[in-house]
Amino acid sequence: MIANKFDHIGIAVKSIEDTLETFGKLFQSNKVKIETNEALSLKIAIIYFEGIKLELIQPIDENEIVVNKYLNKRGEGIHHLAFLVESVQKSLDNAKSSRFELIEQVPRKGAQNKYVGFLNPKSTNGCLIEFCSHSK
Amino acid sequence: MIANKFDHIGIAVKSIEDTLETFGKLFQSNKVKIETNEALSLKIAIIYFEGIKLELIQPIDENEIVVNKYLNKRGEGIHHLAFLVESVQKSLDNAKSSRFELIEQVPRKGAQNKYVGFLNPKSTNGCLIEFCSHSK
Repeated sequence: MIANKFDHIGIAVKSIEDTLETFGKLFQSNKVKIETNEALSLKIAIIYFEGIKLELIQPIDENEIVVNKYLNKRGEGIHHLAFLVESVQKSLDNAKSSRFELIEQVPRKGAQNKYVGFLNPKSTNGCLIEFCSHSK
Repeated sequence: MIANKFDHIGIAVKSIEDTLETFGKLFQSNKVKIETNEALSLKIAIIYFEGIKLELIQPIDENEIVVNKYLNKRGEGIHHLAFLVESVQKSLDNAKSSRFELIEQVPRKGAQNKYVGFLNPKSTNGCLIEFCSHSK
């Protein structure tokens, strides 16, 4: 077992403002936190509501590769499932030992000042899985 | 506001056994419930674990259209986000009034003996949204 606590659902969007307006009509959220991460070239909104956090991710320029590629290929939509782990490095190492394919071998800085690491969806039945933690 | 309680993440898969084996290596689940719904031509597994329920959906024959179409077009992956509502019909009606496009105008029987209704992802920034309830 590599992860046991669910953290958030990541959703790739073209416009956070537009999506917040849409989702605002559908769901009553407790709180929304928006940040722009220049290093990642991403604008990120975390929507907190009962039972779940949604993370909207919007590229802010062409320097961002991953989400732009997803949007160009598949359009807006549900992008990843993120699990809170004690150590991203340990979870990545354990996943590798269990023959999961890693997208990154070492944790990198992600949203909300957390460390993150992803598994290749080819090895997880098409689901992009993120490990995130405040510790590497 | 049309829905406020998150229920589950739906994942389209080709084989529930194969996915349970993969996910079993990744996550420690509390419980797994498997059912075959002949009327829907779907095999369904609910994985319960901390903070979330995952619903794996696998077509059992060619009579099933929606998930088969998704699998043929996009392959296995995260399929929908489901919200528990008091009345599916009321939520569908309210969504329609707020100019969301409905996939079905009236609730239909879904997994776990619940009533379900879906919104067209074209009107929800690419996210297929399900309303589910034990009441119509």
